[in-house]
Amino acid sequence: MESMNVTILGCNSALPVIDRFQTSQIVHFREKMFMIDCGEGAQIRMRQLKLKATRLNHIFISHLHGDHVFGLIGLISSLGMTGRTADLVIHAHPDLEKLLQPQIDYYCTDMNYKVVFESFDPRKHALIYEDRSLRVTSIPLKHRVPTSGFLFEEKEKPNHIIREMIDLYHIPLREIPHIQHGADFITEDGIVIPNTQLTRTSLPPKKYAYCSDTAYSKRITPWIEGADVLYHEATFLHADILRAKTTGHSSAFQAAEIARDAHVRQLIIGHYSARYAQIEDLLQEAKSIFPNTQLAYDGLNIQI
Amino acid sequence: MESMNVTILGCNSALPVIDRFQTSQIVHFREKMFMIDCGEGAQIRMRQLKLKATRLNHIFISHLHGDHVFGLIGLISSLGMTGRTADLVIHAHPDLEKLLQPQIDYYCTDMNYKVVFESFDPRKHALIYEDRSLRVTSIPLKHRVPTSGFLFEEKEKPNHIIREMIDLYHIPLREIPHIQHGADFITEDGIVIPNTQLTRTSLPPKKYAYCSDTAYSKRITPWIEGADVLYHEATFLHADILRAKTTGHSSAFQAAEIARDAHVRQLIIGHYSARYAQIEDLLQEAKSIFPNTQLAYDGLNIQI
Repeated sequence: MESMNVTILGCNSALPVIDRFQTSQIVHFREKMFMIDCGEGAQIRMRQLKLKATRLNHIFISHLHGDHVFGLIGLISSLGMTGRTADLVIHAHPDLEKLLQPQIDYYCTDMNYKVVFESFDPRKHALIYEDRSLRVTSIPLKHRVPTSGFLFEEKEKPNHIIREMIDLYHIPLREIPHIQHGADFITEDGIVIPNTQLTRTSLPPKKYAYCSDTAYSKRITPWIEGADVLYHEATFLHADILRAKTTGHSSAFQAAEIARDAHVRQLIIGHYSARYAQIEDLLQEAKSIFPNTQLAYDGLNIQI
Repeated sequence: MESMNVTILGCNSALPVIDRFQTSQIVHFREKMFMIDCGEGAQIRMRQLKLKATRLNHIFISHLHGDHVFGLIGLISSLGMTGRTADLVIHAHPDLEKLLQPQIDYYCTDMNYKVVFESFDPRKHALIYEDRSLRVTSIPLKHRVPTSGFLFEEKEKPNHIIREMIDLYHIPLREIPHIQHGADFITEDGIVIPNTQLTRTSLPPKKYAYCSDTAYSKRITPWIEGADVLYHEATFLHADILRAKTTGHSSAFQAAEIARDAHVRQLIIGHYSARYAQIEDLLQEAKSIFPNTQLAYDGLNIQI
């Protein structure tokens, strides 16, 4: 599977409600799974959605508020019981290790795998994960404690070489990688075949931006510019903007402004305050600024 | 509400499954709520079942395995956010405080109530909670770590005095408590009116016994003798008895034997291993020994 997609495991704010757990999501990308945040019950949602954690090797934690981390110890413990052997890497603020390691030592005595803490500074924009085809960078956010969003970026893919052209010009195998990366081809007779005639451009790389929890922060727009999908918190209605400001959160209106200014394709809002019985009001508010907005719900799958 | 009743919040064993969370229950008794164990998601189940925690002041933890405690930090944190001021007392093995206090200190900075740890020794049969009308005693169980069940016992209620007799014999107010507790009444003329003529016996005190997790342990029967309801773990089918023994758990067959030998009225089994797709098999096995058996499920309410 080439495509990137995201599954919402939980999307409510600090207090869970009947049908919405606290924050957690899975980014699926080419046979791999990455988790962002891990609120209480994340492992339960994974089971309900039939998501096996065997392909989950990296968890990214935005900040150390309980509603984004309380599901970690249960998940770690359950993975131990299901016979996991592969390392599980948790990318988080350095304090997490101090809080979680004593619990792992006490509760998870029979584990055959290692939890590796890779700490990063949420106040800095930096590369925090990279593999052959994916790059994850931190997006410093504006919250009550050091907090970082995450940008999941597919790496530039080489162009596709057109099979018929290989045959037509008798292109030797060794030339193919060069052509994929933009080179022209020169025949034995010295004729230059321009690259555009030999290749089809690949689909543009996918970009998913996750920004939660955060107050309105214009500063993040260059980092998330042109993302296919932006998940941005919208804890409050704009009528409650003072409450948003004191708690370090955004209104739906502000989330939509960020989406518009960063020219993203689609906005998903979430992290709703438990005070709103009708989260559709948050959607309407966001849509008034940025029409291509959707409400997150537990179990939602978004194609990036 | 005079009656005692129990709500199951979660009843699966170490691994949660789609519709069964890990162990947690609420004992309701005369306007008060008591929690037994607190697996991950207990606070979510409480919301789903519309159980407000305002009348919850005591939590009893059977043992320090993750599936019985991972829901505590989330519950504690959420109670802080909803403005609680009353102390919350957690009765548990002393290690729990060492594990939980650092998390409370880090994650629950704005709390207006206190979590009080009352430690007890799960290896001893002792009184661990008492109020005017209720007594909770520990039941030492047989598991891989120090583990205790709990017996919730309504205190003996004084007999009801028959109103008409007060009028008939002109019984003075000061005599009533004595008569309620069994005294005869002597009239001014020296006639002895036997207590049985003056009173109606109250309903027998309610008794609820919770025994999880435990291997088969005949030793517990005197402590739970005659309980109205026994919740006993039945992690395995008896065909898997070797696995039950090595992990310190019981088969459904063994749970039923305990119920029979302790002459309880009703048996509820739970803490099912995730290996069984059909938990009805566990029920059939238990019923073959003790017919008045019921399967626990999340949300079940049992009148004691």
